[in-house]
Amino acid sequence: MAQHVHAPGDSPVRSDDVAALVEEVRARSPLVHCITNVVVANLTANVLLAAGAAPAMVDAPEESGVLAGAAGALLVNLGTLTSAQAEGIEVAVRAAVAAGVPWVLDPVAIGALPLRTDLARELSRRGPAIIRGNASEIAALAGGAGGRGVDSTHSPDEVAAAAAEVAGDCGAVVAVSGPVDLVTDGSRVARVASGTPLLTRVTGTGCSLGALMGAFRAVTDDGLLAAVAATALLTVAGEQAAATTQGPGSFAVALLDRIADVDPARVAAGARLR
Amino acid sequence: MAQHVHAPGDSPVRSDDVAALVEEVRARSPLVHCITNVVVANLTANVLLAAGAAPAMVDAPEESGVLAGAAGALLVNLGTLTSAQAEGIEVAVRAAVAAGVPWVLDPVAIGALPLRTDLARELSRRGPAIIRGNASEIAALAGGAGGRGVDSTHSPDEVAAAAAEVAGDCGAVVAVSGPVDLVTDGSRVARVASGTPLLTRVTGTGCSLGALMGAFRAVTDDGLLAAVAATALLTVAGEQAAATTQGPGSFAVALLDRIADVDPARVAAGARLR
Amino acid sequence: MAQHVHAPGDSPVRSDDVAALVEEVRARSPLVHCITNVVVANLTANVLLAAGAAPAMVDAPEESGVLAGAAGALLVNLGTLTSAQAEGIEVAVRAAVAAGVPWVLDPVAIGALPLRTDLARELSRRGPAIIRGNASEIAALAGGAGGRGVDSTHSPDEVAAAAAEVAGDCGAVVAVSGPVDLVTDGSRVARVASGTPLLTRVTGTGCSLGALMGAFRAVTDDGLLAAVAATALLTVAGEQAAATTQGPGSFAVALLDRIADVDPARVAAGARLR
Repeated sequence: MAQHVHAPGDSPVRSDDVAALVEEVRARSPLVHCITNVVVANLTANVLLAAGAAPAMVDAPEESGVLAGAAGALLVNLGTLTSAQAEGIEVAVRAAVAAGVPWVLDPVAIGALPLRTDLARELSRRGPAIIRGNASEIAALAGGAGGRGVDSTHSPDEVAAAAAEVAGDCGAVVAVSGPVDLVTDGSRVARVASGTPLLTRVTGTGCSLGALMGAFRAVTDDGLLAAVAATALLTVAGEQAAATTQGPGSFAVALLDRIADVDPARVAAGARLR
Repeated sequence: MAQHVHAPGDSPVRSDDVAALVEEVRARSPLVHCITNVVVANLTANVLLAAGAAPAMVDAPEESGVLAGAAGALLVNLGTLTSAQAEGIEVAVRAAVAAGVPWVLDPVAIGALPLRTDLARELSRRGPAIIRGNASEIAALAGGAGGRGVDSTHSPDEVAAAAAEVAGDCGAVVAVSGPVDLVTDGSRVARVASGTPLLTRVTGTGCSLGALMGAFRAVTDDGLLAAVAATALLTVAGEQAAATTQGPGSFAVALLDRIADVDPARVAAGARLR
Repeated sequence: MAQHVHAPGDSPVRSDDVAALVEEVRARSPLVHCITNVVVANLTANVLLAAGAAPAMVDAPEESGVLAGAAGALLVNLGTLTSAQAEGIEVAVRAAVAAGVPWVLDPVAIGALPLRTDLARELSRRGPAIIRGNASEIAALAGGAGGRGVDSTHSPDEVAAAAAEVAGDCGAVVAVSGPVDLVTDGSRVARVASGTPLLTRVTGTGCSLGALMGAFRAVTDDGLLAAVAATALLTVAGEQAAATTQGPGSFAVALLDRIADVDPARVAAGARLR
């Protein structure tokens, strides 16, 4: 892990680029095709809309390839994977890869659960632009033991080496969510220190972050920047929402409001990039 | 399109009838069987409850016919169609038609996506009471090219001729959502000018409107009135919600509050019917 | 029914135990595996998180057994049952029973709908720790006619005898939701009189209560106490939320806030146990 430690102010991502990308998503409204879990589908769509992107949720294999090939980005989230959904994922990923559409893999709760663990490992070798998970999930993807369900019992920096390994093996940017988020492309490492514990008290904020990364990656080829900027938007908006709310219900409402109206310069300045 | 232009004040639907129907739904609490997409199922149920109706979501073909035949109305929304759900739809529509239960077809995102486009065209010939969509979806149903995903790139009046054609061909009322909503039975045309752009910043408001149309159609045989009154309720409540909120999160919360407590006379007066 | 009537103050559950269990769930954060319906999955997860528990939604039969066997409790809610989901339920229940993991059965809308009615009756014989429903559902489980959809047309006390019969036959605690909730293990009967009609204006509060019962049962072997304490938490938090809100949208938001921050002693004192 030591080789990934950067001094404060040492971020490989520039604040100005983060601000510009938040603007870019709002201006271009990229279409993000989400194959995601039923628990968070609604929040995910609303987070994308709040950020200025256009969500579309289509699972059926008869249609998922058509949409994925035409979308700005594809999200594959394994949270409530079924064998039927896996068919739609297969078709969508094939179409995205063929069309050069960037796609994000969110290997929710892999490790202990067999169907998704096997699929996540297989998918990770097929060229995702970004892989996003919590520390347990990234450790599991690298071959370690998984966590219990969707909780993370490690901090992102504890799995920094595993994240770099996955990034190198898969040719992907790997983003690890936690108190301080870590994003790496295998050589460079960026950290986003903004955030609030309330983000962990609402289901689907992490899954929505994966979708946001798709929206950001749709408007830039720089995967490290895209993952950092999406994380900055969510966590800075989260800090702002937490400043005016206390409970998880009102926080979730304010979070959407703040994603929609936060000043891009404020996102960049508040993200505490390292 | 020209032959459908009415002067302001020329609405074929009377304000008093709109107000009375809002009351009627609250008083009779019709059961609305919704086969809808997983992204919006929760909001749809809460919108129906707020309006005074009783939602029930049942997809399984082993059960969907039993429920559809006993419901006040059936909603068929193709937003996250799968082949498994298509089986439940087939059984439900057959039962609704056999029992004389009115049903609403919402052909979400048809045009580019093959499974739902074929199914929507087939279903449109089987006697839906109301077909609701945005301009792109109605154009696609009439044979034109579809839009991208669930966005609408046309205004309702731009597809007025297509809407009238679909209405005539299918014997249905066709409702086209947009800045000014258009509702036609093929001969008469009504417009509802109330609304707020915030309704487009929350996922599922359009889908919920389809369900509301089912609730209203369950308590009257006048499909044009039902579609107009449901649109009036949602858009006037939306305007009221927008008067006290700014972001999409707080707007969605206020929207449910206002649907539940808006004065029916205010709905009728605020709808700006044409 | 007469033999089950207790005088006020006669509750078989002690207030102190209710308060202690609310604390216990927050301290131990039990993992609750939910196989539930798509309409309420998001609210259910957020209610569990607000109460301090950890939700995980997994339906696939390839995974549901692994998770159920390792969870603190399992919820089986039949609200949007499909034959595919039934396979996941079968595997999960078998694993839970084998591992001694307590599970909750919520037989949503049984009676008129055949697939779920048959399955609920079969499952009820396989050792659920708690069966939760409204009066119509409990009556249907006891062999009576079902209600229409998810509404209840009876009060819990009207089906007290049926609840006791189901409890005795199944060896389960039976919890009946209504204006005054009734919980029985076949011999003892407890009632919780707190609550607000707004709980019926938001979809999924009853379903979330079933999940909460799982969370509470995961930290105690006393099923009667678990069901009563979960009901007390939801209904007292609901009363507090209703004190500051009027519409169903803002009520649902405040409900989550209050579940998260309500003082356990206040839950116990406010529950009006009988």
